[in-house]
Amino acid sequence: MTSALVLLSGGLDSTTVLAYALKKGYDVATLSFDYGQRHNIELLSSRSVADFYGVENTVFKIDLRQVGGSSLTSEMPVEKRDIEKIGESVPNTYVPGRNTIFLSVAAAIAEVRGIDRIMIGANAIDYSGYPDCRPAYFSAMERALSLGTRIGNEKGFHIEVPLQYLSKAEIIRLGSSLGAPYHLTTSCYEGKRPACGRCDSCQLRLRGFMEAGLRDPLEYESFPEFYSEYLKKGRP
Amino acid sequence: MTSALVLLSGGLDSTTVLAYALKKGYDVATLSFDYGQRHNIELLSSRSVADFYGVENTVFKIDLRQVGGSSLTSEMPVEKRDIEKIGESVPNTYVPGRNTIFLSVAAAIAEVRGIDRIMIGANAIDYSGYPDCRPAYFSAMERALSLGTRIGNEKGFHIEVPLQYLSKAEIIRLGSSLGAPYHLTTSCYEGKRPACGRCDSCQLRLRGFMEAGLRDPLEYESFPEFYSEYLKKGRP
Repeated sequence: MTSALVLLSGGLDSTTVLAYALKKGYDVATLSFDYGQRHNIELLSSRSVADFYGVENTVFKIDLRQVGGSSLTSEMPVEKRDIEKIGESVPNTYVPGRNTIFLSVAAAIAEVRGIDRIMIGANAIDYSGYPDCRPAYFSAMERALSLGTRIGNEKGFHIEVPLQYLSKAEIIRLGSSLGAPYHLTTSCYEGKRPACGRCDSCQLRLRGFMEAGLRDPLEYESFPEFYSEYLKKGRP
Repeated sequence: MTSALVLLSGGLDSTTVLAYALKKGYDVATLSFDYGQRHNIELLSSRSVADFYGVENTVFKIDLRQVGGSSLTSEMPVEKRDIEKIGESVPNTYVPGRNTIFLSVAAAIAEVRGIDRIMIGANAIDYSGYPDCRPAYFSAMERALSLGTRIGNEKGFHIEVPLQYLSKAEIIRLGSSLGAPYHLTTSCYEGKRPACGRCDSCQLRLRGFMEAGLRDPLEYESFPEFYSEYLKKGRP
């Protein structure tokens, strides 16, 4: 049986990965990070999602406010952009080194448990333009972890990025077909409930639901215009 | 001017790297980790060494006891071996993922400061056999950080491992020629002062001084036989 440690942020993508891993029959544990994020409400979501599936959820504490440099880990206001501009440049929600730090810690925890596979919900299509979300980066990191861990030296270390080449709409279709509990997830960078509806993450999410022809089960403070238009058309 | 962030553990190797970086004229800052290590006395050494050179020393806190799996971050006794056996297998002082975690955090901090170079004192000759100390690992990690950081995307990210191919004796000769303050360093895995003289780290250090024809300025609880013999011969 394949064992995997799933990075679970409590958002839509990582929840889809978890649903997918369980569907594949993997023996799954989940790992979340309490890293000083302004939207640490997502930790409640990751716990709820893990509980929904009856899988273990470990929360690792690492205070990335010690690093700074991001609106997600400081008082800097979260950059808001028109949805067409998302992906054109690296926004201030970029947390320097975050995926590398998370994958390193995950690899360490996996190694101690005899697990040689990490799954992460990154994708490089409808994303915020972060350098540490691209396929070439994950390949390089997989090689580093294969060489730099004891377990990787024995049997190789695997970073599985199943959503890598999927659009947000495709991710949502996949998750919905697997019954992923999207009503329990949190995506908003502001950490708001109802969600803000204006940050990159809210907008990408809403556009994904729209393009998938579905309705987002979460509540929002306000919708971006494109989503209001979509709802007005009576869909879905 | 080349800027570099030097990982400073307070031990002999990283102190030599710092001396070397300054000799090369680099603009240097140092980074140490308070990771729940049993020998956290080394943080006093890194501070003293940084003060000796008048360079900045940042201490990043990350509790690797959350990972466990190592005698350096748990109550597990530190494995002691005959010096001939060191390097033959991975001992229980191996902290899973440690260098990857440290390099990731260092890269994040470097990026925020506009620094694209990390220096680390790993070496793969007289070492404890850790997988994350080998040249191929550092090359892979350098590639991952070049791809996975914003600064790396702009100008590449560099991991400089200047002691990589040096024996411990060569490291000590290099550091001594540069006036490195070895009297301020701590190497003992037990975190003892006087040092235990029996752990891998103490033994490798003492053999290095012996082979360099020098005397270790630190105090020890007891010496391993080879070093006692060396001193009896009246050297140095």
